Amino acid sequence: MKFPVPVTLSELARMTDSRVMGDGSAHVSGINEIHKVETGDITFVDHPKYYDKALASAASFIIINRECEPPPGKSLLFASDPFACYNRIVLHFRKFIPASGNISSTSSIGNHTVLQPGVFIGENVTIGDHCVIHPNVTIYDHTQIGNHVIIHAGTVLGADAFYFKRRPEGYDKMHSCGRVVIHDYVEIGAGCTIDKGVSGDTLIGKGTKLDNQIHVGHDTVIGKNCLIAGQVGIAGVVTIEDDVILWGQVGVQKDLTIGKGAVVLGQSGIPKSLEGGKTYFGSPTQEAREKMKELALIKRLPEIVEKLKKKNLGH
Amino acid sequence: MKFPVPVTLSELARMTDSRVMGDGSAHVSGINEIHKVETGDITFVDHPKYYDKALASAASFIIINRECEPPPGKSLLFASDPFACYNRIVLHFRKFIPASGNISSTSSIGNHTVLQPGVFIGENVTIGDHCVIHPNVTIYDHTQIGNHVIIHAGTVLGADAFYFKRRPEGYDKMHSCGRVVIHDYVEIGAGCTIDKGVSGDTLIGKGTKLDNQIHVGHDTVIGKNCLIAGQVGIAGVVTIEDDVILWGQVGVQKDLTIGKGAVVLGQSGIPKSLEGGKTYFGSPTQEAREKMKELALIKRLPEIVEKLKKKNLGH
Amino acid sequence: MKFPVPVTLSELARMTDSRVMGDGSAHVSGINEIHKVETGDITFVDHPKYYDKALASAASFIIINRECEPPPGKSLLFASDPFACYNRIVLHFRKFIPASGNISSTSSIGNHTVLQPGVFIGENVTIGDHCVIHPNVTIYDHTQIGNHVIIHAGTVLGADAFYFKRRPEGYDKMHSCGRVVIHDYVEIGAGCTIDKGVSGDTLIGKGTKLDNQIHVGHDTVIGKNCLIAGQVGIAGVVTIEDDVILWGQVGVQKDLTIGKGAVVLGQSGIPKSLEGGKTYFGSPTQEAREKMKELALIKRLPEIVEKLKKKNLGH
Repeated sequence: MKFPVPVTLSELARMTDSRVMGDGSAHVSGINEIHKVETGDITFVDHPKYYDKALASAASFIIINRECEPPPGKSLLFASDPFACYNRIVLHFRKFIPASGNISSTSSIGNHTVLQPGVFIGENVTIGDHCVIHPNVTIYDHTQIGNHVIIHAGTVLGADAFYFKRRPEGYDKMHSCGRVVIHDYVEIGAGCTIDKGVSGDTLIGKGTKLDNQIHVGHDTVIGKNCLIAGQVGIAGVVTIEDDVILWGQVGVQKDLTIGKGAVVLGQSGIPKSLEGGKTYFGSPTQEAREKMKELALIKRLPEIVEKLKKKNLGH
Repeated sequence: MKFPVPVTLSELARMTDSRVMGDGSAHVSGINEIHKVETGDITFVDHPKYYDKALASAASFIIINRECEPPPGKSLLFASDPFACYNRIVLHFRKFIPASGNISSTSSIGNHTVLQPGVFIGENVTIGDHCVIHPNVTIYDHTQIGNHVIIHAGTVLGADAFYFKRRPEGYDKMHSCGRVVIHDYVEIGAGCTIDKGVSGDTLIGKGTKLDNQIHVGHDTVIGKNCLIAGQVGIAGVVTIEDDVILWGQVGVQKDLTIGKGAVVLGQSGIPKSLEGGKTYFGSPTQEAREKMKELALIKRLPEIVEKLKKKNLGH
Repeated sequence: MKFPVPVTLSELARMTDSRVMGDGSAHVSGINEIHKVETGDITFVDHPKYYDKALASAASFIIINRECEPPPGKSLLFASDPFACYNRIVLHFRKFIPASGNISSTSSIGNHTVLQPGVFIGENVTIGDHCVIHPNVTIYDHTQIGNHVIIHAGTVLGADAFYFKRRPEGYDKMHSCGRVVIHDYVEIGAGCTIDKGVSGDTLIGKGTKLDNQIHVGHDTVIGKNCLIAGQVGIAGVVTIEDDVILWGQVGVQKDLTIGKGAVVLGQSGIPKSLEGGKTYFGSPTQEAREKMKELALIKRLPEIVEKLKKKNLGH
């Protein structure tokens, strides 16, 4: 997330009861978690294991729970609980405001776009032209929708990321400040849920079509002209390249890439990145041909056991 | 779909900028895709592979992208893009009209039927007597619901079929003109999605009970007194006969039949038709007993490998 | 369910056209099915297989279709159809009343709790302080929600149990009179469905977090600080102890226990109880390490078959 206008590091220090190590007058342009951070942004790190990664990241500013020299060109905020500081900054800029009606007056709805009854449109939502939003769809704050988009009934765009930090007293929520972005000519079926990014965008590319009851996690980016069938579940921070086809009930684990044009057959479970241009099956997935051979061999197990028995008798 | 009144073939030619080959004064009673087409109907074909099938089908009229002699008793429309013509005819008769309220004035609601808050009822919907439609249910245009039907909250009946034609520039939607038809004494759980037929009916037979979060694809026909557990996904054009039981998270591929009284255990994946009266398990499904034996043999693999090793040593 | 005030057994006999065997003046404090029944309650039994279990249960009163001597300290109701009697008593005390508005006037909503547009709140619902209920959520009658609870859009709490008795003429619904109870600091994602208990409570413990599109069946009890990922399906009467983690698309069969701190990997299917403190994978589940070994051995099947072939040649 970018701030509406850049903010000095000292101001963020005051907001979070933390201490500047470096240049307090430097301007911070936005806040992002480590996967999405860009030059000018602030991020956080609270575990020694990730100190080096955070300090070497694109972030110009880092909230950290160790006193140390800022790397060249960067400044730091020292705090005992950087995660809590990150949340305080996010909540300062993305305060939850109870809706004053079904369609927020801060939203922008294009020409020839139809909103059916029961649709909820949050703050600062933009919807393009020639869209149809079917009944009882919920669109959370800051969602961006292009032109010629169809969203079927009961679908939810922009609910919070499923992202928690375990503390001794229970789970602490990482507050989401990202968005859902839907490009032109996308169609989304009924009963889908597409979460907003933690700090970046969950994105569905031009011309991609989703069937019903599909779940897409935070910060996942889906390419153009993909076809995703019913009840597919896609975790967070996944990249799906163009022209991918996922058949029904496929499950995709977080933080991986499915290459351009890959086809994944029904009920497959994808635990790691898949090369494009191939067909996959199984949980965990293998190339479909290989998996089919394996299934055929398993069917021959009784015969194999029989042979082994005979050999034993022969000796 | 049948037209409100029969239409001459010439009129459809004008509507679609196509050319009559045969009798333009013949009356066309309806439009259906190839799986559902009946005598008197028009259908379309655009790939040489399916020309013969379409010309020999029950259709009395075929939109085709080849100049040819009509088969005896049939007439044709010649067009370079039959799929687009089909869509234009469908959209002419099933134009999407934005709702003027939550409950369309063209719908018919029976006696002693309760519609809870947030329910949306589209155009030309019929609901029988003694039904309860729980909050935030969406019922699209043309849905037919019998008597003593219960539909739980958030369920969506009649969203569009997931049916697209791949073109060089992206996916082109086949517009649905079918319906959802729910017979008497059906109960449907919360968060289900049942798509309308592409041109025919998606049907749920008398006394069948659906749990929550079930997806039923277009043109699927479910028999009487079936029991379908949570999160089952059923693709399009499936036939499920009477008294079938599907346990949780089962996936059913398109265009197959599950025979009367079959029982399919949880998480099974059904890739092809199943005989009735048997119990199945696995993805892909096998008879449950056979699958259980296989699982037991797989557990013996370490022992098998051990035996093979010993034999190698022995020689 | 407890009755608002205790009721004499004779009164229940009149209500159900059944006959008292024992003390008609005894007071009955509530009605519960056999899994949840407590001293003072009435339950029912209609199959000889379960007579002894019901008569020896905690129930003080049993509706039964056999004439017999009441056990010491208990009284019976004789009826030819005890299931129907049970339903009549439940429906007498839990009559379905059509809503008069979106938020029932008999509900109690705490301080600083936000109800977004399109939310439905049924009769006798209690929601604590500092909660956010996002748009188009449906909360059925009698649901209890603690403090600091977040429920995302489109979720449904308290739909009826999926519980039917097969009769020659079709399925007969067991009417639910239980509740959904959500403890403090729970967060529930979008598009979830949590069914009410048949006669007891479906419960989610303090600090537990649910992702999107999760289904939780009737009378299931989930402990504290669990993490349940997207599209998990949990059947009825399951016990999930504290600190359990279920990854995406896991399926849990009914009537089992998952021990404290167990972790179950994505798409696993759980057919029987799991010990706590371990990691599981597969459908059906095994310990993850064991399952991984098995998968590795299956990959060696081609080599094993090859070896067997060679041995055949060698002899």
